[in-house]
Amino acid sequence: MTSSFSLDGAIRKIPDFPKKGILFYDITSVLANPDAFRFCIDAMIQAYSNTRIDAVAAVESRGFVFAAPFALKLGIPLILVRKKGKLPGKTISAKYALEYGEAEIEVHEADVPKGKRVLIVDDLIATGGTIRATSELLKRGGAEVAGVFCVIGLSSLNFRKDLGDIPVKTLIEYEGE
Amino acid sequence: MTSSFSLDGAIRKIPDFPKKGILFYDITSVLANPDAFRFCIDAMIQAYSNTRIDAVAAVESRGFVFAAPFALKLGIPLILVRKKGKLPGKTISAKYALEYGEAEIEVHEADVPKGKRVLIVDDLIATGGTIRATSELLKRGGAEVAGVFCVIGLSSLNFRKDLGDIPVKTLIEYEGE
Repeated sequence: MTSSFSLDGAIRKIPDFPKKGILFYDITSVLANPDAFRFCIDAMIQAYSNTRIDAVAAVESRGFVFAAPFALKLGIPLILVRKKGKLPGKTISAKYALEYGEAEIEVHEADVPKGKRVLIVDDLIATGGTIRATSELLKRGGAEVAGVFCVIGLSSLNFRKDLGDIPVKTLIEYEGE
Repeated sequence: MTSSFSLDGAIRKIPDFPKKGILFYDITSVLANPDAFRFCIDAMIQAYSNTRIDAVAAVESRGFVFAAPFALKLGIPLILVRKKGKLPGKTISAKYALEYGEAEIEVHEADVPKGKRVLIVDDLIATGGTIRATSELLKRGGAEVAGVFCVIGLSSLNFRKDLGDIPVKTLIEYEGE
Protein backbone atom coordinates (compact mmCIF):
# COMPACT_ATOMS: atom_id res chain seq x y z
CA MET A 1 0.00 0.00 0.00
CA THR A 2 2.47 2.61 -1.20
CA SER A 3 -0.01 5.49 -0.86
CA SER A 4 -0.94 4.85 2.76
CA PHE A 5 0.98 7.96 3.84
CA SER A 6 -1.61 10.02 1.99
CA LEU A 7 -4.47 8.13 3.66
CA ASP A 8 -2.95 9.03 7.01
CA GLY A 9 -2.89 12.67 5.91
CA ALA A 10 -6.57 12.48 4.98
CA ILE A 11 -7.70 11.10 8.37
CA ARG A 12 -8.62 13.87 10.83
CA LYS A 13 -7.30 13.26 14.36
CA ILE A 14 -9.29 14.81 17.18
CA PRO A 15 -7.93 14.64 20.73
CA ASP A 16 -10.14 13.96 23.77
CA PHE A 17 -13.18 12.58 21.93
CA PRO A 18 -15.46 11.02 23.02
CA LYS A 19 -13.61 11.59 26.31
CA LYS A 20 -10.34 12.97 27.67
CA GLY A 21 -7.26 10.95 26.71
CA ILE A 22 -8.77 9.33 23.61
CA LEU A 23 -7.48 10.35 20.17
CA PHE A 24 -10.38 9.96 17.73
CA TYR A 25 -9.58 8.92 14.15
CA ASP A 26 -12.26 10.63 12.06
CA ILE A 27 -13.04 9.37 8.57
CA THR A 28 -15.47 12.18 7.64
CA SER A 29 -12.43 14.03 6.30
CA VAL A 30 -11.66 11.02 4.07
CA LEU A 31 -15.22 11.06 2.70
CA ALA A 32 -15.04 14.80 2.03
CA ASN A 33 -11.87 14.18 -0.04
CA PRO A 34 -12.86 12.40 -3.29
CA ASP A 35 -9.33 11.13 -3.99
CA ALA A 36 -8.99 9.65 -0.49
CA PHE A 37 -12.42 8.00 -0.58
CA ARG A 38 -11.71 6.56 -4.04
CA PHE A 39 -8.34 5.27 -2.79
CA CYS A 40 -10.07 3.40 0.07
CA ILE A 41 -12.70 1.76 -2.11
CA ASP A 42 -10.19 0.79 -4.81
CA ALA A 43 -7.84 -0.69 -2.17
CA MET A 44 -10.74 -2.60 -0.61
CA ILE A 45 -11.73 -4.11 -3.96
CA GLN A 46 -8.09 -4.97 -4.65
CA ALA A 47 -7.73 -6.61 -1.21
CA TYR A 48 -10.48 -9.13 -2.00
CA SER A 49 -9.84 -9.64 -5.71
CA ASN A 50 -8.72 -13.24 -5.03
CA THR A 51 -11.23 -14.07 -2.27
CA ARG A 52 -14.75 -15.38 -2.76
CA ILE A 53 -17.17 -12.92 -1.12
CA ASP A 54 -20.90 -13.56 -1.62
CA ALA A 55 -22.36 -10.72 0.45
CA VAL A 56 -21.31 -7.73 2.60
CA ALA A 57 -22.50 -6.96 6.13
CA ALA A 58 -22.22 -3.24 6.96
CA VAL A 59 -21.90 -2.16 10.58
CA GLU A 60 -23.95 0.95 11.54
CA SER A 61 -23.33 3.57 10.56
CA ARG A 62 -19.91 4.56 9.18
CA GLY A 63 -19.49 1.02 7.86
CA PHE A 64 -22.37 1.76 5.47
CA VAL A 65 -20.36 4.25 3.40
CA PHE A 66 -17.57 1.76 2.63
CA ALA A 67 -19.72 -1.36 2.31
CA ALA A 68 -22.26 0.12 -0.12
CA PRO A 69 -19.89 0.95 -3.00
CA PHE A 70 -18.10 -2.39 -2.51
CA ALA A 71 -21.36 -4.36 -2.70
CA LEU A 72 -22.44 -2.45 -5.81
CA LYS A 73 -19.09 -2.96 -7.52
CA LEU A 74 -19.19 -6.73 -6.88
CA GLY A 75 -22.95 -6.99 -7.55
CA ILE A 76 -23.56 -8.80 -4.25
CA PRO A 77 -26.13 -8.29 -1.44
CA LEU A 78 -25.59 -5.57 1.18
CA ILE A 79 -26.85 -6.42 4.68
CA LEU A 80 -27.30 -3.69 7.30
CA VAL A 81 -26.24 -4.49 10.87
CA ARG A 82 -28.02 -1.96 13.09
CA LYS A 83 -28.42 -0.87 16.67
CA LYS A 84 -31.30 -2.58 18.49
CA GLY A 85 -34.79 -1.32 17.60
CA LYS A 86 -34.12 0.20 14.18
CA LEU A 87 -34.93 -2.74 11.93
CA PRO A 88 -38.67 -3.25 11.38
CA GLY A 89 -38.74 -6.95 10.43
CA LYS A 90 -37.93 -10.17 12.27
CA THR A 91 -34.36 -9.95 13.54
CA ILE A 92 -31.52 -11.91 15.10
CA SER A 93 -29.75 -9.90 17.82
CA ALA A 94 -26.53 -10.09 19.84
CA LYS A 95 -25.26 -8.17 22.85
CA TYR A 96 -21.70 -7.03 23.37
CA ALA A 97 -19.81 -5.34 26.18
CA LEU A 98 -18.97 -1.65 26.17
CA GLU A 99 -16.55 0.04 28.57
CA TYR A 100 -19.56 0.72 30.77
CA GLY A 101 -22.60 -1.51 30.24
CA GLU A 102 -23.51 -3.23 27.01
CA ALA A 103 -25.02 -2.63 23.58
CA GLU A 104 -27.09 -4.75 21.24
CA ILE A 105 -27.05 -5.04 17.48
CA GLU A 106 -29.30 -6.88 15.09
CA VAL A 107 -29.87 -7.93 11.51
CA HIS A 108 -32.97 -8.92 9.55
CA GLU A 109 -33.15 -12.71 9.65
CA ALA A 110 -34.46 -12.74 6.06
CA ASP A 111 -31.41 -10.80 4.82
CA VAL A 112 -28.76 -13.24 6.11
CA PRO A 113 -27.69 -15.40 3.16
CA LYS A 114 -27.64 -19.01 4.35
CA GLY A 115 -24.44 -20.88 3.55
CA LYS A 116 -22.87 -17.85 1.88
CA ARG A 117 -19.52 -16.17 2.58
CA VAL A 118 -20.05 -12.73 4.11
CA LEU A 119 -17.48 -9.93 4.54
CA ILE A 120 -18.03 -7.70 7.61
CA VAL A 121 -17.23 -4.01 6.97
CA ASP A 122 -16.73 -1.10 9.35
CA ASP A 123 -14.68 2.10 9.31
CA LEU A 124 -12.53 1.31 12.38
CA ILE A 125 -11.71 -1.67 14.59
CA ALA A 126 -10.49 -1.14 18.17
CA THR A 127 -11.29 -3.93 20.66
CA GLY A 128 -13.35 -5.75 18.03
CA GLY A 129 -16.44 -6.14 20.25
CA THR A 130 -18.94 -4.98 17.65
CA ILE A 131 -17.28 -7.10 14.98
CA ARG A 132 -17.38 -10.23 17.15
CA ALA A 133 -21.09 -9.64 17.85
CA THR A 134 -21.71 -9.17 14.12
CA SER A 135 -19.85 -12.38 13.37
CA GLU A 136 -21.99 -14.22 15.92
CA LEU A 137 -25.20 -12.84 14.37
CA LEU A 138 -24.23 -13.92 10.89
CA LYS A 139 -23.21 -17.41 11.98
CA ARG A 140 -26.44 -17.87 13.93
CA GLY A 141 -28.32 -16.80 10.78
CA GLY A 142 -26.56 -19.57 8.84
CA ALA A 143 -23.90 -17.58 7.00
CA GLU A 144 -20.14 -18.07 6.97
CA VAL A 145 -17.87 -15.14 7.91
CA ALA A 146 -15.31 -14.78 5.12
CA GLY A 147 -13.42 -11.90 6.70
CA VAL A 148 -13.44 -8.47 8.27
CA PHE A 149 -12.48 -5.23 6.54
CA CYS A 150 -11.98 -1.94 8.38
CA VAL A 151 -10.28 1.14 6.97
CA ILE A 152 -8.49 1.82 10.28
CA GLY A 153 -7.21 -0.63 12.90
CA LEU A 154 -6.03 0.34 16.40
CA SER A 155 -3.42 -2.36 16.74
CA SER A 156 -2.58 -1.95 20.44
CA LEU A 157 -6.15 -2.94 21.30
CA ASN A 158 -5.52 -6.50 20.09
CA PHE A 159 -8.56 -6.63 17.86
CA ARG A 160 -7.33 -9.81 16.16
CA LYS A 161 -7.52 -11.62 19.49
CA ASP A 162 -10.81 -13.49 20.00
CA LEU A 163 -11.67 -13.30 16.28
CA GLY A 164 -10.29 -16.83 15.88
CA ASP A 165 -9.28 -17.58 12.33
CA ILE A 166 -11.35 -14.82 10.71
CA PRO A 167 -8.90 -12.77 8.63
CA VAL A 168 -8.95 -9.03 9.35
CA LYS A 169 -7.72 -6.55 6.74
CA THR A 170 -7.16 -2.84 7.31
CA LEU A 171 -5.74 -0.06 5.14
CA ILE A 172 -3.88 1.66 7.96
CA GLU A 173 -3.09 0.83 11.58
CA TYR A 174 -2.36 3.08 14.56
CA GLU A 175 -1.08 2.24 18.01
CA GLY A 176 -4.34 3.49 19.50
CA GLU A 177 -5.20 5.01 22.87
CA MET B 1 -39.07 5.32 -14.91
CA THR B 2 -40.54 2.28 -16.64
CA SER B 3 -39.06 -0.16 -14.12
CA SER B 4 -40.51 1.45 -11.00
CA PHE B 5 -42.94 -1.46 -10.62
CA SER B 6 -39.97 -3.72 -9.86
CA LEU B 7 -38.63 -1.24 -7.31
CA ASP B 8 -41.99 -1.40 -5.55
CA GLY B 9 -41.66 -5.18 -5.49
CA ALA B 10 -38.21 -4.91 -3.92
CA ILE B 11 -39.33 -2.64 -1.04
CA ARG B 12 -40.40 -4.61 2.05
CA LYS B 13 -43.60 -3.24 3.65
CA ILE B 14 -43.97 -3.87 7.37
CA PRO B 15 -47.24 -2.94 9.11
CA ASP B 16 -47.38 -1.33 12.57
CA PHE B 17 -43.75 -0.20 12.76
CA PRO B 18 -42.52 1.80 14.64
CA LYS B 19 -46.08 1.91 16.04
CA LYS B 20 -49.58 0.65 15.31
CA GLY B 21 -51.19 2.05 12.18
CA ILE B 22 -47.92 2.98 10.43
CA LEU B 23 -46.85 1.02 7.34
CA PHE B 24 -43.04 1.04 7.26
CA TYR B 25 -41.29 1.09 3.85
CA ASP B 26 -38.08 -0.85 4.43
CA ILE B 27 -35.16 -0.44 2.03
CA THR B 28 -32.95 -3.15 3.57
CA SER B 29 -34.63 -5.56 1.11
CA VAL B 30 -33.57 -3.28 -1.75
CA LEU B 31 -29.96 -3.35 -0.53
CA ALA B 32 -30.02 -7.14 -0.20
CA ASN B 33 -31.11 -7.34 -3.86
CA PRO B 34 -28.15 -6.34 -6.09
CA ASP B 35 -30.35 -5.61 -9.13
CA ALA B 36 -32.66 -3.35 -7.13
CA PHE B 37 -29.79 -1.47 -5.47
CA ARG B 38 -28.03 -1.01 -8.82
CA PHE B 39 -31.32 0.23 -10.34
CA CYS B 40 -31.60 2.92 -7.61
CA ILE B 41 -28.04 4.19 -8.00
CA ASP B 42 -28.22 4.23 -11.81
CA ALA B 43 -31.56 6.08 -11.68
CA MET B 44 -30.12 8.58 -9.21
CA ILE B 45 -27.11 9.29 -11.43
CA GLN B 46 -29.42 9.61 -14.44
CA ALA B 47 -31.71 12.02 -12.53
CA TYR B 48 -28.85 14.52 -12.04
CA SER B 49 -26.98 14.02 -15.31
CA ASN B 50 -27.94 17.56 -16.40
CA THR B 51 -27.66 19.27 -13.01
CA ARG B 52 -24.52 20.75 -11.48
CA ILE B 53 -23.89 19.00 -8.16
CA ASP B 54 -20.60 19.84 -6.35
CA ALA B 55 -21.06 17.73 -3.18
CA VAL B 56 -23.47 15.29 -1.52
CA ALA B 57 -24.84 15.54 2.04
CA ALA B 58 -25.91 12.12 3.40
CA VAL B 59 -28.52 11.98 6.15
CA GLU B 60 -27.82 9.40 8.90
CA SER B 61 -27.93 6.58 8.47
CA ARG B 62 -29.79 4.98 5.57
CA GLY B 63 -28.98 8.01 3.42
CA PHE B 64 -25.32 6.97 3.66
CA VAL B 65 -25.80 3.87 1.49
CA PHE B 66 -27.25 5.81 -1.45
CA ALA B 67 -25.10 8.94 -1.12
CA ALA B 68 -21.74 7.13 -0.94
CA PRO B 69 -21.85 5.39 -4.36
CA PHE B 70 -23.24 8.58 -5.95
CA ALA B 71 -20.42 10.73 -4.55
CA LEU B 72 -17.81 8.19 -5.69
CA LYS B 73 -19.27 7.96 -9.18
CA LEU B 74 -19.29 11.76 -9.59
CA GLY B 75 -15.92 12.18 -7.80
CA ILE B 76 -17.33 14.81 -5.42
CA PRO B 77 -17.17 15.25 -1.60
CA LEU B 78 -19.48 13.24 0.66
CA ILE B 79 -20.61 15.07 3.82
CA LEU B 80 -22.14 13.12 6.72
CA VAL B 81 -25.13 14.69 8.49
CA ARG B 82 -25.37 12.97 11.87
CA LYS B 83 -27.41 12.86 15.04
CA LYS B 84 -26.15 15.21 17.77
CA GLY B 85 -23.01 14.09 19.62
CA LYS B 86 -21.52 11.71 17.06
CA LEU B 87 -19.22 14.05 15.15
CA PRO B 88 -15.94 14.74 16.96
CA GLY B 89 -14.96 18.07 15.37
CA LYS B 90 -16.45 21.58 15.43
CA THR B 91 -20.03 21.35 14.18
CA ILE B 92 -23.03 23.38 13.06
CA SER B 93 -26.28 21.96 14.46
CA ALA B 94 -30.02 22.36 13.88
CA LYS B 95 -33.07 21.14 15.78
CA TYR B 96 -36.25 19.85 14.23
CA ALA B 97 -39.62 18.76 15.54
CA LEU B 98 -40.61 15.12 15.93
CA GLU B 99 -44.13 13.91 16.61
CA TYR B 100 -43.23 14.04 20.30
CA GLY B 101 -40.36 16.30 21.25
CA GLU B 102 -37.46 17.26 19.02
CA ALA B 103 -34.22 15.96 17.56
CA GLU B 104 -30.95 17.61 16.61
CA ILE B 105 -28.58 16.94 13.73
CA GLU B 106 -25.18 18.32 12.92
CA VAL B 107 -22.41 18.50 10.38
CA HIS B 108 -18.69 19.23 10.63
CA GLU B 109 -18.27 22.92 9.86
CA ALA B 110 -15.01 22.18 8.02
CA ASP B 111 -16.76 19.72 5.69
CA VAL B 112 -19.41 22.15 4.37
CA PRO B 113 -18.18 23.40 0.98
CA LYS B 114 -18.64 27.18 0.92
CA GLY B 115 -20.45 28.49 -2.15
CA LYS B 116 -20.90 25.01 -3.61
CA ARG B 117 -24.09 23.27 -4.76
CA VAL B 118 -24.94 20.38 -2.45
CA LEU B 119 -27.45 17.56 -3.05
CA ILE B 120 -29.15 16.23 0.13
CA VAL B 121 -29.70 12.44 0.08
CA ASP B 122 -31.86 10.18 2.26
CA ASP B 123 -33.72 6.91 1.75
CA LEU B 124 -37.23 8.24 2.48
CA ILE B 125 -38.97 11.59 2.85
CA ALA B 126 -42.20 11.86 4.85
CA THR B 127 -42.89 15.25 6.49
CA GLY B 128 -39.49 16.54 5.39
CA GLY B 129 -38.45 17.75 8.86
CA THR B 130 -34.97 16.20 8.79
CA ILE B 131 -34.39 17.42 5.26
CA ARG B 132 -35.41 20.99 6.15
CA ALA B 133 -33.02 20.94 9.12
CA THR B 134 -30.24 19.60 6.87
CA SER B 135 -30.93 22.35 4.35
CA GLU B 136 -30.72 24.97 7.12
CA LEU B 137 -27.39 23.50 8.32
CA LEU B 138 -25.84 23.60 4.88
CA LYS B 139 -27.00 27.15 4.18
CA ARG B 140 -25.69 28.37 7.53
CA GLY B 141 -22.37 26.71 6.63
CA GLY B 142 -22.24 28.75 3.41
CA ALA B 143 -23.33 26.12 0.88
CA GLU B 144 -26.19 26.26 -1.63
CA VAL B 145 -28.78 23.45 -1.60
CA ALA B 146 -29.05 22.18 -5.18
CA GLY B 147 -31.78 19.63 -4.49
CA VAL B 148 -33.05 16.71 -2.46
CA PHE B 149 -33.01 13.07 -3.52
CA CYS B 150 -34.85 10.32 -1.65
CA VAL B 151 -35.56 6.83 -2.98
CA ILE B 152 -39.09 6.86 -1.48
CA GLY B 153 -41.50 9.77 -0.97
CA LEU B 154 -44.67 9.59 1.12
CA SER B 155 -46.68 12.06 -0.95
CA SER B 156 -49.66 12.51 1.36
CA LEU B 157 -47.34 14.00 3.98
CA ASN B 158 -46.77 17.06 1.79
CA PHE B 159 -43.02 16.91 2.03
CA ARG B 160 -42.61 19.45 -0.79
CA LYS B 161 -44.39 22.06 1.33
CA ASP B 162 -41.97 24.26 3.31
CA LEU B 163 -39.01 23.21 1.17
CA GLY B 164 -39.49 26.39 -0.89
CA ASP B 165 -38.00 26.17 -4.35
CA ILE B 166 -35.63 23.28 -3.55
CA PRO B 167 -36.40 20.54 -6.12
CA VAL B 168 -37.16 17.12 -4.61
CA LYS B 169 -36.70 13.96 -6.69
CA THR B 170 -37.82 10.48 -5.68
CA LEU B 171 -37.81 7.13 -7.47
CA ILE B 172 -41.18 6.01 -6.13
CA GLU B 173 -43.99 7.66 -4.15
CA TYR B 174 -46.62 6.15 -1.85
CA GLU B 175 -49.71 7.74 -0.35
CA GLY B 176 -48.24 7.19 3.13
CA GLU B 177 -49.83 6.62 6.53
